[in-house]
Amino acid sequence: MIAGVIGATGYAGLELTRILARHPRITELLAASSSAEGEQLEHIQPHLEKTISIKLTDAKTLINTADAVFSALPNGHGGELAKLAASRPVPFIDLSADFRFGTDEATYNAWYNLSYKGGELHAASVYGLPEMNRKKIAELGAARNSAPVVIANPGCYPTAVTLAAYPAVSLGLIEADGIIVADALSGISGAGRELGRAYHFAECADSASVYKVGTHRHTPEICRNLSRAVVFTPHLVPMNRGILATLYIPLEKKLKVTSNAAAPRLPTQEMEEHAAEIRKAYTTFYKDEHFIRVLPAGLLPATNRVRGSNYCDIAVNIAGNGETLIVTGAIDNMVKGAAGQAVQNMNIIFGFDETDGLALPPGLF
Amino acid sequence: MIAGVIGATGYAGLELTRILARHPRITELLAASSSAEGEQLEHIQPHLEKTISIKLTDAKTLINTADAVFSALPNGHGGELAKLAASRPVPFIDLSADFRFGTDEATYNAWYNLSYKGGELHAASVYGLPEMNRKKIAELGAARNSAPVVIANPGCYPTAVTLAAYPAVSLGLIEADGIIVADALSGISGAGRELGRAYHFAECADSASVYKVGTHRHTPEICRNLSRAVVFTPHLVPMNRGILATLYIPLEKKLKVTSNAAAPRLPTQEMEEHAAEIRKAYTTFYKDEHFIRVLPAGLLPATNRVRGSNYCDIAVNIAGNGETLIVTGAIDNMVKGAAGQAVQNMNIIFGFDETDGLALPPGLF
Amino acid sequence: MIAGVIGATGYAGLELTRILARHPRITELLAASSSAEGEQLEHIQPHLEKTISIKLTDAKTLINTADAVFSALPNGHGGELAKLAASRPVPFIDLSADFRFGTDEATYNAWYNLSYKGGELHAASVYGLPEMNRKKIAELGAARNSAPVVIANPGCYPTAVTLAAYPAVSLGLIEADGIIVADALSGISGAGRELGRAYHFAECADSASVYKVGTHRHTPEICRNLSRAVVFTPHLVPMNRGILATLYIPLEKKLKVTSNAAAPRLPTQEMEEHAAEIRKAYTTFYKDEHFIRVLPAGLLPATNRVRGSNYCDIAVNIAGNGETLIVTGAIDNMVKGAAGQAVQNMNIIFGFDETDGLALPPGLF
Amino acid sequence: MIAGVIGATGYAGLELTRILARHPRITELLAASSSAEGEQLEHIQPHLEKTISIKLTDAKTLINTADAVFSALPNGHGGELAKLAASRPVPFIDLSADFRFGTDEATYNAWYNLSYKGGELHAASVYGLPEMNRKKIAELGAARNSAPVVIANPGCYPTAVTLAAYPAVSLGLIEADGIIVADALSGISGAGRELGRAYHFAECADSASVYKVGTHRHTPEICRNLSRAVVFTPHLVPMNRGILATLYIPLEKKLKVTSNAAAPRLPTQEMEEHAAEIRKAYTTFYKDEHFIRVLPAGLLPATNRVRGSNYCDIAVNIAGNGETLIVTGAIDNMVKGAAGQAVQNMNIIFGFDETDGLALPPGLF
Repeated sequence: MIAGVIGATGYAGLELTRILARHPRITELLAASSSAEGEQLEHIQPHLEKTISIKLTDAKTLINTADAVFSALPNGHGGELAKLAASRPVPFIDLSADFRFGTDEATYNAWYNLSYKGGELHAASVYGLPEMNRKKIAELGAARNSAPVVIANPGCYPTAVTLAAYPAVSLGLIEADGIIVADALSGISGAGRELGRAYHFAECADSASVYKVGTHRHTPEICRNLSRAVVFTPHLVPMNRGILATLYIPLEKKLKVTSNAAAPRLPTQEMEEHAAEIRKAYTTFYKDEHFIRVLPAGLLPATNRVRGSNYCDIAVNIAGNGETLIVTGAIDNMVKGAAGQAVQNMNIIFGFDETDGLALPPGLF
Repeated sequence: MIAGVIGATGYAGLELTRILARHPRITELLAASSSAEGEQLEHIQPHLEKTISIKLTDAKTLINTADAVFSALPNGHGGELAKLAASRPVPFIDLSADFRFGTDEATYNAWYNLSYKGGELHAASVYGLPEMNRKKIAELGAARNSAPVVIANPGCYPTAVTLAAYPAVSLGLIEADGIIVADALSGISGAGRELGRAYHFAECADSASVYKVGTHRHTPEICRNLSRAVVFTPHLVPMNRGILATLYIPLEKKLKVTSNAAAPRLPTQEMEEHAAEIRKAYTTFYKDEHFIRVLPAGLLPATNRVRGSNYCDIAVNIAGNGETLIVTGAIDNMVKGAAGQAVQNMNIIFGFDETDGLALPPGLF
Repeated sequence: MIAGVIGATGYAGLELTRILARHPRITELLAASSSAEGEQLEHIQPHLEKTISIKLTDAKTLINTADAVFSALPNGHGGELAKLAASRPVPFIDLSADFRFGTDEATYNAWYNLSYKGGELHAASVYGLPEMNRKKIAELGAARNSAPVVIANPGCYPTAVTLAAYPAVSLGLIEADGIIVADALSGISGAGRELGRAYHFAECADSASVYKVGTHRHTPEICRNLSRAVVFTPHLVPMNRGILATLYIPLEKKLKVTSNAAAPRLPTQEMEEHAAEIRKAYTTFYKDEHFIRVLPAGLLPATNRVRGSNYCDIAVNIAGNGETLIVTGAIDNMVKGAAGQAVQNMNIIFGFDETDGLALPPGLF
Repeated sequence: MIAGVIGATGYAGLELTRILARHPRITELLAASSSAEGEQLEHIQPHLEKTISIKLTDAKTLINTADAVFSALPNGHGGELAKLAASRPVPFIDLSADFRFGTDEATYNAWYNLSYKGGELHAASVYGLPEMNRKKIAELGAARNSAPVVIANPGCYPTAVTLAAYPAVSLGLIEADGIIVADALSGISGAGRELGRAYHFAECADSASVYKVGTHRHTPEICRNLSRAVVFTPHLVPMNRGILATLYIPLEKKLKVTSNAAAPRLPTQEMEEHAAEIRKAYTTFYKDEHFIRVLPAGLLPATNRVRGSNYCDIAVNIAGNGETLIVTGAIDNMVKGAAGQAVQNMNIIFGFDETDGLALPPGLF
């Protein structure tokens, strides 16, 4: 089977190429790049020499040849490419935000300052978070030879935040109108390959910073996923890979363990027991999800424990006088947050084993 | 005037030595170390060669000679040393947690598993956050020749979190019973000089992790400072210096700008105006505080902008459907979070200019 | 086929486990650890959860069960384990230095302060640098069912330095008695998992240092490989993975392009042509070596271009008034410098495709 | 006294500003920037808020007002500015390469592809490496009111390499025609503030690379300083500050301690004694140089031990069968390698204490 990557020279495109190159079901790999059409990818990216040999083509040719198409282009290109893909049809997995809002063009307009270009495909597309929408993705995939398949691959932050909050929301553990606070840290590859003062080594190494407070484009995607207000605040930390999201979720069932909040005590046994129950509920909720690892009590996530892998590690605890559920999720932003999840979506569409091409154990470094 | 540093070979002790060595009012510098008594500090720490020359002494001798004593020893040593200092008396500034809880020994017992050893000095001591307690510190200092002066230098996280939240709490901007969420990031020097798997370069570089969820010892100090429940969650990020704390504060005056929280809009003008008011209130609140820099709209904190300095940068914004105040504070954990603040306390005690020895502009790196 | 890793909880052991877990010819993986016998590896190293499940055993049991044995234990343990392996016999690949000196026990004694414990196996063992000794390794492997197979997996620095210098030495490009200067940089994982002040993040991040000048244990291994004096100087730089070795080789055919060495000119065409010839000679020398990539003119090595892979990138240039050949080699110290090369040796021993298990494209990060 | 910095918004300009702001002899500080004329420096660089307040002016106005002028502009601007400064005259310290080659315009042309624009000032200028040219700098300075003073502040690499080799060359320890190999590592601030793919965090963090082999512009400056061929090879390592240069110097007095170079022994007592003699010679050579610290036997340089300071740490050892002197020097590239050395030059010109403004003890981080 032939897979094709459009936008192959960006970080997400390169990671896709790297994963697909060793995918057991992919026999041929195509790549397109508007800036380097006609060149060999491994000449532009010499770290790939001897591991792949791909002459970069254009998007249209690629779409006409491949059996599965991934687009890692910036926002705004997905609509037209999806229409091309739909005309064959060939499954189209878009790593941009262009299809993430389904029929809600207004939200996409407001946050991305762009208009829909995919016509009816926006309504027909599925948001590709397998742990939430596997059935829909599979159904779309099952009809792939006769109907368009357009998958909106989720954003990196929304993946981490949604996976960490989804059980609490689904199981009603959260206070009815409670606002979730989602505080997230990202490595610098998340900013993509574009040059910018903020990503110059000397300006960001040995520094942590907060950015786009209240204005990050992933906010509406997160709120929509969780059907509620989420205060999402991204931070940049000096590492290459990884997202760590810590969520503060107001519990429906509050414990109120101390009368004097200004002189708190260490977590009480009651709090630990409640946390254990919720941890168990999370574990059960995700029991069939290979890529989710709900950590046992006492173990907390670190991004290097999911490095290079498609796993999402999740820890569940209670603090703040028994009223707040604290859930931390860790992913590799380039894998589960981008390329890996896209391949996971492809696996579902084609009925492959969901771990095909994604079985590499994480490295600590 | 002679200053003395007990525990001079740890990170906080070294930073104290570095600052005091160029302090315009200090004419002689003493240093004590139980592990290296009798040796020259600059032989053990050859980066200091030619800049200082100090023969390490013992704590008792140091206390009997110095005009101002700093202790950078681990928790548990402050009480007895303070009593020695009080017997002269000579001002004693303790960087450990031993005096941070005043008369509330129970909280100290519960979180530190230690008992008070400073007798009446615990009640007489002052918590040395100048922006909160300058008057008390100065009053104690004014009587320094006749009465004991014991200053509890605040913890690094509590300094950042308290400075970021204090105006909101003092000015009643926060919902009456509202829980503050304080999500904080620390560089690895904050862990001190002890060896540990978690601080081995290969285990923490290129990784972000969360630790001690709900159980970090700085929690009760923060809650006490702010007179309320604070959910404090510390994270470790791969940088040397710096703390970045992002606080989520439920506003008393909520805006409720959108009816559909799941489809949020970018911050409205109403939210921006409210944020500008609060930013102005913060600016006014701290108008006489040299070391606090409330940032103008559009500018957000990064730890490298306070690197090596005693400044605390604070940004004020509103998000989350108009209900949540987001305040981020950045400090250098070794300076405003430890040694610099200790020197600031000394300056107040002795009536020096508060910036003496602390005038170095921050470096970006 | 069953592979077994002794010393599975160190960095080299973990990397071996990670590679072998996805090796197409390995059907079962065993692991031994003296410190954690009886425990599940993935419990001790939770980043491995769901990717492997191995109950840690003891070395003896492992040797009695496996079809191929790797030892990633510290120096001094190889001899006895090799004897156990030889008694079956089962191929034994030792990542320590214990078998690297063959019959030259004196050198091993002098530099490692240890004695041989492997008896006749030291003479029978082969130094496992495939690009130098493939034939010997294969011959030993072909008789693996009837005779002991002991492979001394090379040191990380010697791998990089030898591969960069070997063609120049073999082809007589180097001045007859010329001393090679080998200046090498290593990431911090090279120091292993032991705790040490020098590897504490705060002590080594944002710092480069030189260590063991003239005394590093890899020196005699390098000199033996290249049959001459090599001045080897290792440096520690703040990265996790990677070795970059720059070699200065006095050319037999000197160009003497400038009369005034104190006012040098940019490389002349003559120098460029000579460099191109030598580059071509290197390319030819390594033409059948999959894991060596001799870079084209204008491209220089960076460790992130071999990250996570078994490749060695080599660049060839001439400088210094036309008298000095400069060869830089880059490897991933954990892969080609340790675990990957060990698996490459196993592949040769068993007649597998040499890239089996080692086909992962490098990542830039 | 008024000091002025032209090119104040680059890294070297900012470091100059930072040092001069606390210099005891400077009462007023001016700054010029062609890109931001008319703006407040602390608005463009908010990390400087409250520490300095400077309205950026133009270079001409600055030169007409200041008592000492520093230029941190890129190569090519120094000549004309120097002429302006000479017309008053006001001392002019140029951090670019424009005056580093004195009367040798041909070398400057060849390596920088630029022509001289400073007329006779090139011949009159002095190369500002105080440890080599203090007397000349002081003589020029003594006549500063009547004659032009133009100082060529050395390059960062040439500073480290020259200081490490100068005693060996001056004292005749080096073989008469011996080529020095200078292998150097630089932090990324050395690349300046310009954006470039190579300095994007994700492309250079966790990677070491070699660059400009045989073609780096600092090569002719180094060769000229040492009056001989020097093979200079720069490397980029993932840290912000620091240069570490390891030099391999062929000894005039060779020891030839081993007959079999391929089976080396650890350094012999004879070698150690010879190294000790040379170390002593270095110490004596630099005995009056405050900013040089020749390290005792057993101590080796690390860049974090000179971090933020004007020191150059130097270690002397012998290896390679007794034939090679290995000297490693460490500096902070932004201080002794740029801004600090420029201030040191100013101090000499004006007869100030050479450590004025440069007394800050190094920080480890």
